[in-house]
Amino acid sequence: MDQHLIPQLFLVLAAILIAAKLFGDLAERIGQPAVLGELVAGVLLGPSLFGIIPTQGPAAEVLHVFAELGVVLLLFEIGLETDLREMFRVGAASLAVASVGVAAPFALGFLYWLYGPTGTPDAQGATGAAIFIGATLTATSVGITARVLSDLRQMRTPEARIIVGAAVIDDVLGLVILTVVSGMAAGAAVSMGGVAQIVGLAVGFLVAAVLIGGLVVPRLFRLVDRMSVRGVLVAFAVAFAVGLAGLASFAGSALILGAFAAGVVLSATNQFDVIVRDVKPVAQVFTPIFFVSVGAAVNLTLLDPRREGAGSLLLVAGALTALAIAGKVIAGWAAPWARYRRLVVGVGMIPRGEVGLIFADIGLRSGIITEGVFSAVLLMVMATTFVVPPALKALFGPAPREIELAREGSDAAS
Amino acid sequence: MDQHLIPQLFLVLAAILIAAKLFGDLAERIGQPAVLGELVAGVLLGPSLFGIIPTQGPAAEVLHVFAELGVVLLLFEIGLETDLREMFRVGAASLAVASVGVAAPFALGFLYWLYGPTGTPDAQGATGAAIFIGATLTATSVGITARVLSDLRQMRTPEARIIVGAAVIDDVLGLVILTVVSGMAAGAAVSMGGVAQIVGLAVGFLVAAVLIGGLVVPRLFRLVDRMSVRGVLVAFAVAFAVGLAGLASFAGSALILGAFAAGVVLSATNQFDVIVRDVKPVAQVFTPIFFVSVGAAVNLTLLDPRREGAGSLLLVAGALTALAIAGKVIAGWAAPWARYRRLVVGVGMIPRGEVGLIFADIGLRSGIITEGVFSAVLLMVMATTFVVPPALKALFGPAPREIELAREGSDAAS
Repeated sequence: MDQHLIPQLFLVLAAILIAAKLFGDLAERIGQPAVLGELVAGVLLGPSLFGIIPTQGPAAEVLHVFAELGVVLLLFEIGLETDLREMFRVGAASLAVASVGVAAPFALGFLYWLYGPTGTPDAQGATGAAIFIGATLTATSVGITARVLSDLRQMRTPEARIIVGAAVIDDVLGLVILTVVSGMAAGAAVSMGGVAQIVGLAVGFLVAAVLIGGLVVPRLFRLVDRMSVRGVLVAFAVAFAVGLAGLASFAGSALILGAFAAGVVLSATNQFDVIVRDVKPVAQVFTPIFFVSVGAAVNLTLLDPRREGAGSLLLVAGALTALAIAGKVIAGWAAPWARYRRLVVGVGMIPRGEVGLIFADIGLRSGIITEGVFSAVLLMVMATTFVVPPALKALFGPAPREIELAREGSDAAS
Repeated sequence: MDQHLIPQLFLVLAAILIAAKLFGDLAERIGQPAVLGELVAGVLLGPSLFGIIPTQGPAAEVLHVFAELGVVLLLFEIGLETDLREMFRVGAASLAVASVGVAAPFALGFLYWLYGPTGTPDAQGATGAAIFIGATLTATSVGITARVLSDLRQMRTPEARIIVGAAVIDDVLGLVILTVVSGMAAGAAVSMGGVAQIVGLAVGFLVAAVLIGGLVVPRLFRLVDRMSVRGVLVAFAVAFAVGLAGLASFAGSALILGAFAAGVVLSATNQFDVIVRDVKPVAQVFTPIFFVSVGAAVNLTLLDPRREGAGSLLLVAGALTALAIAGKVIAGWAAPWARYRRLVVGVGMIPRGEVGLIFADIGLRSGIITEGVFSAVLLMVMATTFVVPPALKALFGPAPREIELAREGSDAAS
C-alpha cells in the first residue's frame, strides 16, 4: 500500500467534514436545509473546482466505502424513527406513489427520446437508448429527501412516511430496472422470471428481516443489555445495520434496504433510546461524507458555454429535468384514497441522486448512450438533486409547530 | 471496483464488532481488561483460524484504514483526557523512561544476537541482523497499555501519565529507528543529520501543534459554538483529529502523535464535555477494529510442533520475549527522582504491538532477517502484547477506589 494513502485520506476526510458543516450552517442561515450546503461543499471540493476529493485509485475506493457507510447509517437512523404500524397504514399509498413514480417518468423519457424534437425513432439502437433514458428517470434517491425532511423536522408527518415507504419500494423497482438494463447492456435477453426473482428477493428479504428480526432481536438485545463492557450497544447496533445491509446486498437486493430493515427492527428494543443517542454522533460523522461525495460527482465543466455542443446539451438536459420533475409530481397524485399533501410527496420523490448516475454510467460504458447524452443525464441528476431541498422547504413553510420545534432545538443545543 | 467489496466489508465489519464485544465482555467476566478479549477475537477471526478477516486486496486495505482511524480516535480520546500541566510535571520522568526503554532492549537484543547461544558474530551480515533484532525490541505500542489503563479506570494516575508520555516519546524514537533501519535495508548510509531532522520534526510538530493550537483552537471552537447545524461539534472534533494526524504523518512524524496533540489541544476548549460525549461512541465503534486487526496479524501455525524447526523457533522467540520484557521493566526504574510505582510503568511499556511488526516486516522484505527470525519476532510481539493486560490488572489489583469507580460506572450504564 502507498504509505501516503492514509495521511492523504485523513486530510481529505477532515476537509470534507469541515466543508460539509460550514456550508451546512450557511445553508441553514439562508433558510435552506443543511444537506444543500453539503452538496455545494461536494461540488467545491470535487474535481470541477478544487479537486481535493480523489476520483480514482485506492483513496477514492476507501472514500466510497465511507460514503456508503454514511448512507447506510442514515437509512438505519430513518428505520429507527419508523413506526411500522404507521408505515403499514400508508403502505398502499406508498406502493401507488412508487409505481406511478417509476412508470410515469419512464414513459415520458422513452416517448421524448423517440418522438421528441431531437427524436429519430428509425435510427439503429434508438429504442435501446430510449429505454435507457427512461430508466435513468425512474429511481428516487431517498437520501436527499430523507435528510431534508429530517433537517426540517418533518420525519413524523404522513407525507414523510409515504415518501420513505415509496422510496424503499422504488429501490426494489430500481434493482429490477438495473438488472434489466444491465442485461440489455450485455446484450442478453431479459426474462420475466428474472424480473420476478429480483422483486421476490427484495420483498422476501424485507419481510423476513422484519418478521424474524422482530421476534429474535428484542430478546437478543436483552442479553446484550446484561453485558457490561463499554460501547456494547452502539457496536452491536452498527454491526446489525452494516450486517443486514451486507446480507441484503448479497441476497441480490440493496444495501440501504437492509439498513432500513435493521433500524425498523431495533426500534422495537428496550434499548432504543440509548441506541438512537449513541448512533447519532457516528451517523453525523459519516452521513455528510455521502452527500459531499454526491456533490463531488458533479462536473461543472459541462456547463461551460464555450464547450462544443453546450447549447443543445443544455436543451436536452432541460427537457429531461422537466420530464423527471413532471413524472414524480404526477406520482404524488397516485393515491386518491389517502389524505396527504400531494405536491409535497411528488416533490419529495424528485431527486435522482446517485441511482441515476449508476444507470447513466452503465449506459455510457456499454455504448448504448453517447457521452453527450450521458452529460445531459448528469445535468438532470444534478438539477433534480439541487431543486428539492429549497422546494420542500418552501412547501412546508415556517409552520407554527416547526418554528416552535426549531426554537426548542436551538435552546437544547445552546 | 468489485461490486461485492462493500457488502463483504460490511459483513466483516459486523463480525469484527460483534466478536470484539462478545470476547471483551468475556474477558471482563474473568477479571481481565476488555482489550485482551478483542485481541483474542482477532486471532479467531484472522487467517490462522476462521479466516473471516481479509489479509490482502482492496478489502484488507479498507479495513486497515478503518483500524488506523480506530487507533487515531483512541489516541485522540487519550489526548482529550490528558492534562498538559500534569504531563509536564512527569515530562522528565517520561523522557528518562522512554530513553532507557529504547536503549536497554536494543542493547539486550543486539548482544543476544551476536554473542548469545545461537550467535555467530563473524558471519556475514550478522551485525546488520543484530541491529534489526535490537530495533524490533524497542518501540512501545501505546494502544494496548492505554486501553488497559482506560479499562481499569487508571488513566489519571501518575503511572498512566508517565507511560503515555514515554510512549509518545517512544513513537518519536521509533520513527528515528525506523528511518535508520529502512536506510540500512535500502543499503544507504545513515547520517546524524538525518536522525536529527526526524527528531526535530516530531518534537517541533508536537510543540507547534500544542502552542499554536492552544492559542487558536479555543477561539475557533467558540465560533463553531455559534453554528447551529446538527453534529457540528463531533464533526469538527473528528476532522481536527484526523487532520492533525494526517499533517503529522506528512511532516515526517507519526499519525498517532498528531491525534494525541489534537486531543490535548481540544481538552482546553469550552465544548470539552460535549466533544468527549459525542466522540466516545464513534471511538467505541472504530477502536475495536484496530485491536481485532492486531490480533488477526497473529499466525498460530507458527506454534504447530509438527512444523520443521518449531522447537528452536520457540527457544529464540522465548529469549527475545524475555529480553523485551526485561528491557522495559529496567526502564521503569529510569527516573529515580520521581514518585511512582516503577514496576507498573515498566510493565506498561512492554507491548510491542503493530510497531514491532512493521520493523520485522521491513527486515524480512529486505532479506536482512530470515523467515525463521521473522517468525520468532512475531511470536515475541504476540507474547508481549498478550502478557500486559493480565499483568497490569494483577499489579493494580482491586484497589478500593477502583471498585468504587467500577460500581459508579455500572450504575451509570444501567
